[in-house]
Amino acid sequence: MSDHSISAPSPRQTGYLLTPGPITTTLSVKQAMLTDWGSWDNDFNLLTASIRQQLLALAHAEAEFSCVLLQGSGTYAVEATLATLVPRSGKLLILMNGAYGQRMAKICDYLGRDYVSLDMGDYLPPEPAEVARLLAADPAISHVAVVHCETSSGILNPVEAIAKVVKTAGRSLIIDSMSGFGALPVDARSLPFDALISSANKCLEGVPGFAFSLIRTGVLQQCAGNAHSLSLDLFDQWQYMERTGQWRYTPPTHTVAALAQALQEHTAEGGVAGRLARYRQNRDVMLAGMRQLGFRTLLEDDWLSPIIVTFFCPPPPFDFKAFYAALKQRGFIIYPGKLTAVDSFRIGCIGQVAAAQMQQLVSAVAEACQELGLSLPVPLPAHLTSSTVAQA
Amino acid sequence: MSDHSISAPSPRQTGYLLTPGPITTTLSVKQAMLTDWGSWDNDFNLLTASIRQQLLALAHAEAEFSCVLLQGSGTYAVEATLATLVPRSGKLLILMNGAYGQRMAKICDYLGRDYVSLDMGDYLPPEPAEVARLLAADPAISHVAVVHCETSSGILNPVEAIAKVVKTAGRSLIIDSMSGFGALPVDARSLPFDALISSANKCLEGVPGFAFSLIRTGVLQQCAGNAHSLSLDLFDQWQYMERTGQWRYTPPTHTVAALAQALQEHTAEGGVAGRLARYRQNRDVMLAGMRQLGFRTLLEDDWLSPIIVTFFCPPPPFDFKAFYAALKQRGFIIYPGKLTAVDSFRIGCIGQVAAAQMQQLVSAVAEACQELGLSLPVPLPAHLTSSTVAQA
Ligand SMILES: Cc1ncc(COP(=O)(O)O)c(C=O)c1O
Ligand SMILES: Cc1ncc(COP(=O)(O)O)c(C=O)c1O
Repeated sequence: MSDHSISAPSPRQTGYLLTPGPITTTLSVKQAMLTDWGSWDNDFNLLTASIRQQLLALAHAEAEFSCVLLQGSGTYAVEATLATLVPRSGKLLILMNGAYGQRMAKICDYLGRDYVSLDMGDYLPPEPAEVARLLAADPAISHVAVVHCETSSGILNPVEAIAKVVKTAGRSLIIDSMSGFGALPVDARSLPFDALISSANKCLEGVPGFAFSLIRTGVLQQCAGNAHSLSLDLFDQWQYMERTGQWRYTPPTHTVAALAQALQEHTAEGGVAGRLARYRQNRDVMLAGMRQLGFRTLLEDDWLSPIIVTFFCPPPPFDFKAFYAALKQRGFIIYPGKLTAVDSFRIGCIGQVAAAQMQQLVSAVAEACQELGLSLPVPLPAHLTSSTVAQA
Repeated sequence: MSDHSISAPSPRQTGYLLTPGPITTTLSVKQAMLTDWGSWDNDFNLLTASIRQQLLALAHAEAEFSCVLLQGSGTYAVEATLATLVPRSGKLLILMNGAYGQRMAKICDYLGRDYVSLDMGDYLPPEPAEVARLLAADPAISHVAVVHCETSSGILNPVEAIAKVVKTAGRSLIIDSMSGFGALPVDARSLPFDALISSANKCLEGVPGFAFSLIRTGVLQQCAGNAHSLSLDLFDQWQYMERTGQWRYTPPTHTVAALAQALQEHTAEGGVAGRLARYRQNRDVMLAGMRQLGFRTLLEDDWLSPIIVTFFCPPPPFDFKAFYAALKQRGFIIYPGKLTAVDSFRIGCIGQVAAAQMQQLVSAVAEACQELGLSLPVPLPAHLTSSTVAQA
């Protein structure tokens, strides 16, 4: 069991959030929002500077990268990074195996940027050799985008191997590490990429309100005039922050203060390694319990991330809405699935929860099943009874 | 004196924020952020629905308008509204008398939307008759944009008269009421407009993190496919919210909860009328005190808003940085000026301050002047000693 101490959810709290974020944060992170900061004041500028520095340090990217903060949700930072980095004459290869890869294609449609996708469906990982082949076959491809942990299934994509082939092919790599950064190790000194995107409210355990992109400075310097949007122009945002120490437009001051506190707590927990260890343990405790109750995961063990896990829904009378409500009543908020073909649900492993809460969750799931008239262990979903998918 | 009771700034607070926002909020608004909400959970959906409804009601716009919330700062909502409402074949007339009108032009440059500006310089109001003439002369103009309170000078633009001529000419009006909505009365039943933009962290006294646009529903329905950006597509955001009750992408949950609380407190203060009365008194108390100390306003009394007031800097040895620091030490954060030609500073009247704080501010200004070796009353700025500008 982890010795990380978890405070009870606050009084008006609906429960522990076992979701891909916003997640459960510490009371101290939330209390950091009890101050109003002047967005033009130097005290706040110091906070901004310190966050930018720490985010770079988390990726060992201080030497060659700049951290650009952006108001809005994670999608904004994905759109802003693609728009700012991929020139209008560029072409993007999107490695797609879920909703967030698909969303990048939608963004390119809006931007009018040329792109191709390697679409692996709902949950298969992209093959590095296939990526190499595609890059060799199409010299027009200037950039490749990959999702670190594709949160829609929970798959941990082989980012290191993909980065290697993209580098060998001389193209530029953009990593959406929205749901992983802060827990999944990233070392810019050995992992070749030009941009990595994440946000305040996932593994960093801050609250939602802004996102950020770590961008290779030499690349960013070439990006003036690329963006399609004033608000989402990361070049302009970066230049302004460098020049003034301030955000270009009103920052979510309270959210920024919360991340500053969250980053202190991240360090105190042992940084990326400490956080990863707790999330892994969360996942392992939860997974063992859920499997004992008969639930089956979408993915084979090799591809399971410590971020979020997709389970197949058992056959009727299992009903997700009733299951969700029964768990909520017991203090746990879980998440619906996002698969196209079969019914599923997801359980997150991130945020302020540790092994003890995951044990409680498993007990709550058992109780919920009984309350809903499901026998334990729950039966296999129909599509698994005649196949061998997904279980080691 | 107002009987509105103001709590002291919180312990780590730098002081009262006399700025155009983020402003000083109540402790109870900030405490509303002590809960983590699941962004997919129904409890949170109810919060979102209630805010949308209340924002419409504040403008008496329930019947014919929809409220679209948007993650990000106010500029995002301005860009999103222009992009979503003005079709690619449209043409915008921008009534410009300061930084926020100028920013709209910059947005149109990014969007590739055709536009013309009526540029009144730093502080002169647009003449309704001139607007009518421009609209008559150029039938290609489909939309007109005006800033309600142009926060860069503090001028209260003649929105009612302008709305009338725009309506008469059969064009569509977009109002940026970022810094005024919640205190400046807006009645959609009598004021003809198609969109009005504002944000959570100004006169509504919430915290920054999202903005919104109240858009005539019949107009919004025609806007599919206009926007240049996925994140900023208000049509898509609106459709998704209507269909699911949820935000399309991760909402700033804590900030949303803060606005829900802030709206309750807005109602308790007597709604728009109550808030306007307090802000007016703030301005009047502050203005009388500052004038007694010799400070001169940029604008004649008729154009002074109850939002923020621009003062000319006295001649040297007055130094804004030293003045700012001396006031900050005394618990007040003021704001730099934004005029192109002469040195100025601004003092905001909005947020959790009342007449008593404004009196304290005036005393602090007097002390600061003495500390900085300025004689009282402060002498006129050089450009005023030989002219008659700006004083009634
Ligand atoms: C991998 C990934 N990319 C992008 C996003 C989009 O982020 P947001 O919902 O903050 O816009 C998410 C959100 O969960 C994500 O997990
Ligand atoms: C009138 C007006 N429009 C637009 C904005 C831009 O808002 P933001 O700084 O939140 O992007 C402001 C901000 O003060 C404003 O006062």
